[in-house]
Amino acid sequence: MSARVKRLAIVGVGLIGGSIGLAARACKAAETVVGIGRDPRKLREAIELGAIDQATTDWREGLAGALAVVICSPVSIVAADAVRAAGLVDENGLITDAGSTKSSIVARVEADPRGRRFFVGAHPIAGSERQGVAHARADLFQKRVCVLTPTEKTPRDRLAQARSFWESLGCRVVERSPEAHDEALAWSSHLPHVAASALAGSVPIDALELAAGAYRDGSRVALADAELWSAILLDNRASILRAIDGFNRSLADLRDAIDQADADRLRSLWNLARNRRLRFAFDSDSPAKTDSEPTSP
Amino acid sequence: MSARVKRLAIVGVGLIGGSIGLAARACKAAETVVGIGRDPRKLREAIELGAIDQATTDWREGLAGALAVVICSPVSIVAADAVRAAGLVDENGLITDAGSTKSSIVARVEADPRGRRFFVGAHPIAGSERQGVAHARADLFQKRVCVLTPTEKTPRDRLAQARSFWESLGCRVVERSPEAHDEALAWSSHLPHVAASALAGSVPIDALELAAGAYRDGSRVALADAELWSAILLDNRASILRAIDGFNRSLADLRDAIDQADADRLRSLWNLARNRRLRFAFDSDSPAKTDSEPTSP
Repeated sequence: MSARVKRLAIVGVGLIGGSIGLAARACKAAETVVGIGRDPRKLREAIELGAIDQATTDWREGLAGALAVVICSPVSIVAADAVRAAGLVDENGLITDAGSTKSSIVARVEADPRGRRFFVGAHPIAGSERQGVAHARADLFQKRVCVLTPTEKTPRDRLAQARSFWESLGCRVVERSPEAHDEALAWSSHLPHVAASALAGSVPIDALELAAGAYRDGSRVALADAELWSAILLDNRASILRAIDGFNRSLADLRDAIDQADADRLRSLWNLARNRRLRFAFDSDSPAKTDSEPTSP
Repeated sequence: MSARVKRLAIVGVGLIGGSIGLAARACKAAETVVGIGRDPRKLREAIELGAIDQATTDWREGLAGALAVVICSPVSIVAADAVRAAGLVDENGLITDAGSTKSSIVARVEADPRGRRFFVGAHPIAGSERQGVAHARADLFQKRVCVLTPTEKTPRDRLAQARSFWESLGCRVVERSPEAHDEALAWSSHLPHVAASALAGSVPIDALELAAGAYRDGSRVALADAELWSAILLDNRASILRAIDGFNRSLADLRDAIDQADADRLRSLWNLARNRRLRFAFDSDSPAKTDSEPTSP
């Protein structure tokens, strides 16, 4: 695949699929972007917002001549959709996805003889607690990491196509095994979602009047969709349970130091965590680099 | 006190004290703002940044003629500083503070016969994980809640002065008992700080490359100062332990639903938390009102 494909097909035109369409059109990564979905109303909205050029509910029509297909379905159906696309895609085509988990998706697609000829698992680490194409943004992937998860079964030319495609949208591409991806994401994304939900679920409503930035930011991603997130959490269950247990050990240490009124230990635990957090450099406005994160207690 | 006092003294000119100085000068809440501190270098920086008009390390000199004194010391020394100020302040003066906890501070100041004549406990709910006057902002308190914590010992005229003073900085003033303040803040602020620290302390450094907005926001306040925060957490120990235990119950429910692969229960727990979070309306750009929070997974 050249950096520019004639026809890009996006299966599922919500926040992620819509942002891929906007980015592909903005950077001219494709001549034509076609959206494939089930709901004609949502497809119309995506056209009106400029996220796609064409829309169809007919997979055969949508995939005819497509040289790149991105599956942006919920994680529970990504694999089935990728296998379905593999039966219809151009012989030179690439199938990639944007699912938040990778092991089960990659294994299921690769179990299909035709699926594994076209598929490169991908996870662009960008998104929002919001849903729907109305929140899509052309710059959602700019400078964001996209993890490709090739295996020994992945054709090398398809891997190169996938790298080129995701880079054309502005991503910084890295490679991991599907298992290494899922283990890292359990800690870096899925655990923070679970902690945010536990926070949102436990703070009494009558304390919210006196809440500010610490609560706002700590609970933000609890606003994410229950359907999407229960699927992600169950798909990556074993790694997430380990991450929750690790979090619980840190929390128990802090609780114990508070319970014992042990100021030295509390300061020490706090500084250990603080020093780890200082190692995090998210993007150009990361505090580790420029000390300019949004303010509030 | 009229909305405009001749002389405002700020004890401790860091992020909070500096922001009070900037706000008071910007809205002309005082003719002269004097900063009182121990470190001449920091006081000079505060003058250079325009946070204060004058600076001194001499309390007698700083408090002479001051009609409003704001104690912005760390919580562990607010009470002692307030009592010290009470021995020097003008007979018509107000002493208030900006401490994140209130019960122990108010009790200790009120145990002093002179202290209780002048003091109104206050907590403007605004701040940052950052420290120092260099991060001070004139608009830090705009539209933020300031909790006043009067008791039956608080003189009514001083309470009126305190309300007028904090409102002049842009705050929305509410009143709570010191105990009700501490119980609410344990949930709305202190627990989110503990959870952020546990998150920052448990996520392995090698997972950070694949972290994005959920980790960034969920762990942001773990960057707060260890000394300040260990003092706050120990000062409000009993309430915070209850809040941690409540959080743990929510987390254990989520963990159990994941462990049991119980999708229905997981969705139900997630939506309970999500619906609580939707009740939170922080400010004009809160998602509950305008759906415009910063984006990222």
